[in-house]
Amino acid sequence: MATLTDTPYTIAPQPDLPRLTRAVTGTDQTGRAVDLRVVEERPLTIYLNSREIVTAMTIGDYPAYLALGFLRNQGMLSDSDVVTAVDYDAELEVVVVRTEVDSDHEAKLQKKTRTSGCAVGTVFGDMMAGLTGLKLPQTPVRTSDLYALAATINRTPSLYLEAGAIHGTVLCQGERPLVYMEDVGRHNAVDKIAGWMFAEGITADDKLLYTTGRLTSEMVIKTALMGIPTLVSRSGFTAWGVEIAQQVGLTLVGRMKGQRFICLAGDHRLIRDMDPASVPDEARRQGRKAAE
Amino acid sequence: MATLTDTPYTIAPQPDLPRLTRAVTGTDQTGRAVDLRVVEERPLTIYLNSREIVTAMTIGDYPAYLALGFLRNQGMLSDSDVVTAVDYDAELEVVVVRTEVDSDHEAKLQKKTRTSGCAVGTVFGDMMAGLTGLKLPQTPVRTSDLYALAATINRTPSLYLEAGAIHGTVLCQGERPLVYMEDVGRHNAVDKIAGWMFAEGITADDKLLYTTGRLTSEMVIKTALMGIPTLVSRSGFTAWGVEIAQQVGLTLVGRMKGQRFICLAGDHRLIRDMDPASVPDEARRQGRKAAE
Repeated sequence: MATLTDTPYTIAPQPDLPRLTRAVTGTDQTGRAVDLRVVEERPLTIYLNSREIVTAMTIGDYPAYLALGFLRNQGMLSDSDVVTAVDYDAELEVVVVRTEVDSDHEAKLQKKTRTSGCAVGTVFGDMMAGLTGLKLPQTPVRTSDLYALAATINRTPSLYLEAGAIHGTVLCQGERPLVYMEDVGRHNAVDKIAGWMFAEGITADDKLLYTTGRLTSEMVIKTALMGIPTLVSRSGFTAWGVEIAQQVGLTLVGRMKGQRFICLAGDHRLIRDMDPASVPDEARRQGRKAAE
Repeated sequence: MATLTDTPYTIAPQPDLPRLTRAVTGTDQTGRAVDLRVVEERPLTIYLNSREIVTAMTIGDYPAYLALGFLRNQGMLSDSDVVTAVDYDAELEVVVVRTEVDSDHEAKLQKKTRTSGCAVGTVFGDMMAGLTGLKLPQTPVRTSDLYALAATINRTPSLYLEAGAIHGTVLCQGERPLVYMEDVGRHNAVDKIAGWMFAEGITADDKLLYTTGRLTSEMVIKTALMGIPTLVSRSGFTAWGVEIAQQVGLTLVGRMKGQRFICLAGDHRLIRDMDPASVPDEARRQGRKAAE
């Protein structure tokens, strides 16, 4: 966990963890052999008590947080549910979340939604329903913090910088990035953060979510359901993502690169306390490309 | 369909189609109002006869091809199935695929797999099973064609270039791009191509698939199931994607930008008939960024 030293992170990416990448040899345009480190992608089957819920394709770190966060974000695990155990079997690639009372989610499992993101089995109607009457805190966001966060996050050693083809999502507080999760599935990264918050009992009011991924309807809904008032991304956004953010009063900031960004909803939270002209444009090497 | 003129495409992107984008006003880093065109994201619920299968989040073009391709790639629609009708109701955002014989897919629907991609409800085990004994044709691929395709595709007017936050996948033959589908969900674009091929009875042997998205296990599996021997991407790849491509003998080319690319499997199909040094590096404007 060398990456944890000298960082503000409680949880940082683990680009040096051997099982997260694999050595692969390819040939380049000239036919020359090229050795690469390629990010792993493993199935992880999530059970809620005796019920198989979904099989996620993940890099495989933090299986317990992924399971808890997925179930939480799908509305299959609520505050009233008491989690008695989370059992992970690395060999079987299975994680079982056990609750005191075994509630029935068959109804929810009837309706599967295929999203723009990567959440198979998302109960979309349910997620939307969860937004009704949702009140997000009015926590202000300083643009100086946004710029500081982007600079720190983009320089953080990560699987993305090592191997690419992966998404990152970071839970932040003020100018400090706290938990930086990466995964082959964009939504896995968010779910792992949700799982960590749920397990650790972390409050969302004063937090901000930074992601490398697109701001689709589902990313916005998950962030709102997590109670986080601000969602920031380097990437673009969909019309519905913007519409939902406006409806729930979430502050949505997209295309944040170098000094530029576009606020698409909840501009009232932004405190523009820094002159954008004083922000250095991203050096190409620092600039993250996309997982795509 | 102005975009169709002077292009080699049978189906080209439709960046000018009003219902595919929405005008959105945001504020930039200086607080100035910015008007943008943002790509739409709509739910489309796919039925197979009387059975609701999945709700996809899509830009909403080619709903029939998306439905056919999704069912096809999930193994819920086989060559033996006779499609009697595909009914689309734009108001209800529902598409119903009707077959002569109504087969039972409950078993398949029991097992949901959440992939790195965007295919909710993917029957992963099934897809893998479909690969057993699969023989892909040995159709050679000239690197001169790959470079020509990349150049043509990257210059093609598209929703990506207009609004961003979208993925593109292109069915190609030799140096000619035939069908260029875009969607907010990476896998929707592939499924729309599969649906078009199924509906039009297009052979896959002499085709190649070019995508802007990552080469995950599911992208590789879908391409192989479609019978297309070569998959090319601007983006990266996962270890399992590479492993599956090697197992099924699919030619997998990733990180193709400018003169560079890396072949991760099936190098024997490549005919390096062009000096990479003679390929101009992508101008930044031409270079596609990622949908992320």
